Amino acid sequence: MVRVAVVGATGFTGEQIVEIIATHPEAQLTYLTSRVEKPTPYADLYPRHAGTVDLNLENLDADQVIERADVVFLSLPHTVSFQFAPLFVKNGKTVIDLSADYRLRDPKMYEKFYKVVHTDTENVKNAVYGLPELNREKIKASKFIANPGCYPTVSTLALLPLVKAGLVDNIIIDAISGISGAGRSAKIEHHYVHLNENLYAYKVFAHQHVPEIEQTLSDVAGKKQEIIFTPHVVGFERGIYATIYADLAKDFLPEDVWAFYENMYRNEPFIRLRKKAMPQLADVRHTNFCDIGIAVKGRKIVICACIDNLMKGAASQAVQNMNIIHGLGETTGLM
Amino acid sequence: MVRVAVVGATGFTGEQIVEIIATHPEAQLTYLTSRVEKPTPYADLYPRHAGTVDLNLENLDADQVIERADVVFLSLPHTVSFQFAPLFVKNGKTVIDLSADYRLRDPKMYEKFYKVVHTDTENVKNAVYGLPELNREKIKASKFIANPGCYPTVSTLALLPLVKAGLVDNIIIDAISGISGAGRSAKIEHHYVHLNENLYAYKVFAHQHVPEIEQTLSDVAGKKQEIIFTPHVVGFERGIYATIYADLAKDFLPEDVWAFYENMYRNEPFIRLRKKAMPQLADVRHTNFCDIGIAVKGRKIVICACIDNLMKGAASQAVQNMNIIHGLGETTGLM
Amino acid sequence: MVRVAVVGATGFTGEQIVEIIATHPEAQLTYLTSRVEKPTPYADLYPRHAGTVDLNLENLDADQVIERADVVFLSLPHTVSFQFAPLFVKNGKTVIDLSADYRLRDPKMYEKFYKVVHTDTENVKNAVYGLPELNREKIKASKFIANPGCYPTVSTLALLPLVKAGLVDNIIIDAISGISGAGRSAKIEHHYVHLNENLYAYKVFAHQHVPEIEQTLSDVAGKKQEIIFTPHVVGFERGIYATIYADLAKDFLPEDVWAFYENMYRNEPFIRLRKKAMPQLADVRHTNFCDIGIAVKGRKIVICACIDNLMKGAASQAVQNMNIIHGLGETTGLM
Amino acid sequence: MVRVAVVGATGFTGEQIVEIIATHPEAQLTYLTSRVEKPTPYADLYPRHAGTVDLNLENLDADQVIERADVVFLSLPHTVSFQFAPLFVKNGKTVIDLSADYRLRDPKMYEKFYKVVHTDTENVKNAVYGLPELNREKIKASKFIANPGCYPTVSTLALLPLVKAGLVDNIIIDAISGISGAGRSAKIEHHYVHLNENLYAYKVFAHQHVPEIEQTLSDVAGKKQEIIFTPHVVGFERGIYATIYADLAKDFLPEDVWAFYENMYRNEPFIRLRKKAMPQLADVRHTNFCDIGIAVKGRKIVICACIDNLMKGAASQAVQNMNIIHGLGETTGLM
Repeated sequence: MVRVAVVGATGFTGEQIVEIIATHPEAQLTYLTSRVEKPTPYADLYPRHAGTVDLNLENLDADQVIERADVVFLSLPHTVSFQFAPLFVKNGKTVIDLSADYRLRDPKMYEKFYKVVHTDTENVKNAVYGLPELNREKIKASKFIANPGCYPTVSTLALLPLVKAGLVDNIIIDAISGISGAGRSAKIEHHYVHLNENLYAYKVFAHQHVPEIEQTLSDVAGKKQEIIFTPHVVGFERGIYATIYADLAKDFLPEDVWAFYENMYRNEPFIRLRKKAMPQLADVRHTNFCDIGIAVKGRKIVICACIDNLMKGAASQAVQNMNIIHGLGETTGLM
Repeated sequence: MVRVAVVGATGFTGEQIVEIIATHPEAQLTYLTSRVEKPTPYADLYPRHAGTVDLNLENLDADQVIERADVVFLSLPHTVSFQFAPLFVKNGKTVIDLSADYRLRDPKMYEKFYKVVHTDTENVKNAVYGLPELNREKIKASKFIANPGCYPTVSTLALLPLVKAGLVDNIIIDAISGISGAGRSAKIEHHYVHLNENLYAYKVFAHQHVPEIEQTLSDVAGKKQEIIFTPHVVGFERGIYATIYADLAKDFLPEDVWAFYENMYRNEPFIRLRKKAMPQLADVRHTNFCDIGIAVKGRKIVICACIDNLMKGAASQAVQNMNIIHGLGETTGLM
Repeated sequence: MVRVAVVGATGFTGEQIVEIIATHPEAQLTYLTSRVEKPTPYADLYPRHAGTVDLNLENLDADQVIERADVVFLSLPHTVSFQFAPLFVKNGKTVIDLSADYRLRDPKMYEKFYKVVHTDTENVKNAVYGLPELNREKIKASKFIANPGCYPTVSTLALLPLVKAGLVDNIIIDAISGISGAGRSAKIEHHYVHLNENLYAYKVFAHQHVPEIEQTLSDVAGKKQEIIFTPHVVGFERGIYATIYADLAKDFLPEDVWAFYENMYRNEPFIRLRKKAMPQLADVRHTNFCDIGIAVKGRKIVICACIDNLMKGAASQAVQNMNIIHGLGETTGLM
Repeated sequence: MVRVAVVGATGFTGEQIVEIIATHPEAQLTYLTSRVEKPTPYADLYPRHAGTVDLNLENLDADQVIERADVVFLSLPHTVSFQFAPLFVKNGKTVIDLSADYRLRDPKMYEKFYKVVHTDTENVKNAVYGLPELNREKIKASKFIANPGCYPTVSTLALLPLVKAGLVDNIIIDAISGISGAGRSAKIEHHYVHLNENLYAYKVFAHQHVPEIEQTLSDVAGKKQEIIFTPHVVGFERGIYATIYADLAKDFLPEDVWAFYENMYRNEPFIRLRKKAMPQLADVRHTNFCDIGIAVKGRKIVICACIDNLMKGAASQAVQNMNIIHGLGETTGLM
């Protein structure tokens, strides 16, 4: 049994990891941390987990992590992961960081979009970007994972086959996310009444996931790729739906475009190609799947893709990475 | 034109009053207050009202209220109304208080349920409980209204004809409210994710609206009436649905029970008797209506009634009271 | 008082017209039709309107329309309007057709997208496209209005100032609509469970509103304008949110772009320019407003605009047209 | 591996069983039936299950059930189960019937509430009512289960300890269900727009689950128990919340009442006693748990209990029964 610590177990993402590991047949929760006055049964704080999680929530003690866990999920605000990841890496732990701290190779980009100076640029080089469909072999060989962001996961998976083949240009990503993506904080804009049947764009041209998406696509393309990205909040609990516009290098028939997707994703357990109709968000809710559909007209392509932002966009993808690193079946605990 | 000040214009109830008065043909907004750093266009804070409300939000200045307004809606937290109502009353204003401060005649009950000492017991005697269907004549003769609570409005309207006739006993009120009833505050339990498809009971046997309901029903019955009351929160923006259980004094046919409702409510513009099926919450949303249905079996009766908690349960009932006091058509601005 | 017939009063749009006219101070409902076995009180069928609508629903009798109404709202499926509009027009009625039957000037386009042959091409020439912000003077001079579609209304209003100035190219419209846009029919894909937290694209490159949008934009631009349009369904009751991407003719500062909007919309009562943040769908719900925001980066522009699909996207815009034609205040009954 | 046939795999309940068995470690789907024109991949019809369910949906062929399955889940409309259950029982299959056909021992009650004559009264005697917390030993010894209804499951579990101890009288059950409880049919009252923020009571005094609840409570009490039951529909996808009112035999402290619950449910894996606050519906969504809370005041008790109607109220309870009968761990595949 792989022993698992969840550092930051009270956010939506941390809680989702707890839920997955609680029923994972080859891993077990051994340490759950957050800021608490005193050790408190996790299920007292989140009654949903009574009967399945029988562990206290405790304040973070790095020594305890080292003692009790083989795998550490860092579900922390950005800049906080800096303070702990290096220590756990040094101690030989599998570290899967769900913050943005180790995703961007260029510290200037980090500084520009996260408005703070990066203080652990050394370790940035060691982290593998944990998108299994792109980096499975590197993940397998690593013990330090920068788990991708939610918007980047769905956007990259939707574009990967075409960008790799050098087929697309002028990429526009229009994406819509349920509010759990904004975290469990008591803000007035997270109030039920403010979100009920509400939808709006935010951070147009300025979202911090832009450099993350561009970095991956540029790596894959072998040249600089720029995108336009418009995120929206929708009055939903969870899910991200991305509708992507691009110009194709030449006229294509849909089946020709599909061939590139088939070729890349044929054996991927968590990618589903939707050839009969565009994917529906409800079909991926509470799953680790990414569903993808396309429409082609001459040299114009529209790609629709969706994931559950807390699952494939965060927690279950993190567990997928754990499974890969520890040689467990990749889908174990995720179906 | 009746000049209207809304003191506390940023809560859900205050905002709802603003919205109603903004299109009221015989009233106009002249003063909107809340705590603000500096006078700020109301529509900048609540963009929904751009194009319909062209007034600043300002800090409360009692002199300004007296100068600018004929009617003052006090949409304040309880205990805060104490500090202002007497002054405005003394200055001859029509004061419609939406807090609980002047609803309970017995200061001990106030203290027991609101956990503070009442400091203006003098004026409690002067306030008329603003349920038009019960107190229309008193309201007409008054200028100081204690506007009823949301649960008490729907519960009392549902029971009035039967309690007045002395026909019911062992009253149980099971009521469910959308979250706007809890006010616009940034609490984690108001978070969209916590309320999505969620429903739960709270304050069983202990809700502060119990003494308010019991006071009115006892007045009407001419003897002490006790109730069991279970409020619930539902993951909705607005609306209250009450399902009420009681024992009838003898076996009744439904039509005989309906006769009591007809008799009392025949000419009420905002009471709708639903004889074909139980009322549906969606039918009263954004209206001042209270819909009522009944089912009878021997000596058991089930009464279902619903209102929009922000409308008939607060803001539009307050405006209905204003209309009555100022001799405007009772339904003006409310259809 | 303007006498109003609503032909097709049981769809979502027809019902919305009924609701608006019921409280319109200068118009009154005189005839409501749909297929019914026998005349039935409208409020029996839609209990929400009890107390405000006191009229029967009857089978359509064209003579009765002519006798009882000055204005006829045709809220019918496409191809059905053909059969009635000419007669009412000939009899001097104000006819406001909410179907698509008289929107497209080119019968071939109609045939291509609606899959039926147009049988009243003669009258197509006489209908004015009822977008007041574009055609107010023509509307004023006409008595036969082709009321715009929901997606075309929001898309056109968002683009009008820039297209008129010849400033934009490569237009992509990504739009999301609540399910009421699909009409009140009992289909499994309208089932609550299928739509709850669901979102998906449909009819990509193929939606019937594409030629309508292109026709208007081409008229305004004075040259052929083509668009890419991706509609989505979201698990909401109402509202449309459009996020539009385009290339600007040159680098612009946001304020320079705003100037074109100000110039065109300064005096429009139902257009609100959102300069501080992108518009939010909840702010236009149940209103006739169209809210517009922009973001500019070099030669790239993102425009976000939203309306209530049943209101500005259908019923309230139809009433706005009636107000204009009949010389009532344009905002009467719509605030 | 236990081989499983789901007869009626396209309803919400049937689909939920498919989902559970698809990842059950000791059972496998071997046969899925419904009315189809020709065998069709299940995942083509319900894309959510692509990648997890790799089986055709076929028309029911009883011989195939007998050949391919050890366990048959009958997820059929009532009266249809009659036609198949006896055959599968006779052939030694484990039959778990999710319809109401074998729940009521008294055929007259069946006839009264389901409006049809029962044609297999013989086998009614052989079916065990599949509420594990009540009948675990009988279930273990049986191969023919009448799986309880959703309202009866939550109501009975909430009342069992007190009814068994003879402590309660005058029971009123006020229950609220998400719309999936009404089945996957394309009715106008299931339309998203009709259910959005809607809530209403139906079938007051007349719901077909009344005799089922009364039968079980009477069995447990050893004397006739009558209830008042008011079901409501709420605009939710899933979940049932029951608030139950009763008179206690004498004054109790809450802890004394809790003792009865503890005593009966201490070792139950799927019952959670909520002593700190009333249970919340969201905590049981997508689980097999039943959460129970109480409030006591003198001789009055309020019990709140909730389940997921498609899970503990139908599909996962059915699987729990399968686990018990086949000697698998009772919680296998259900956590």
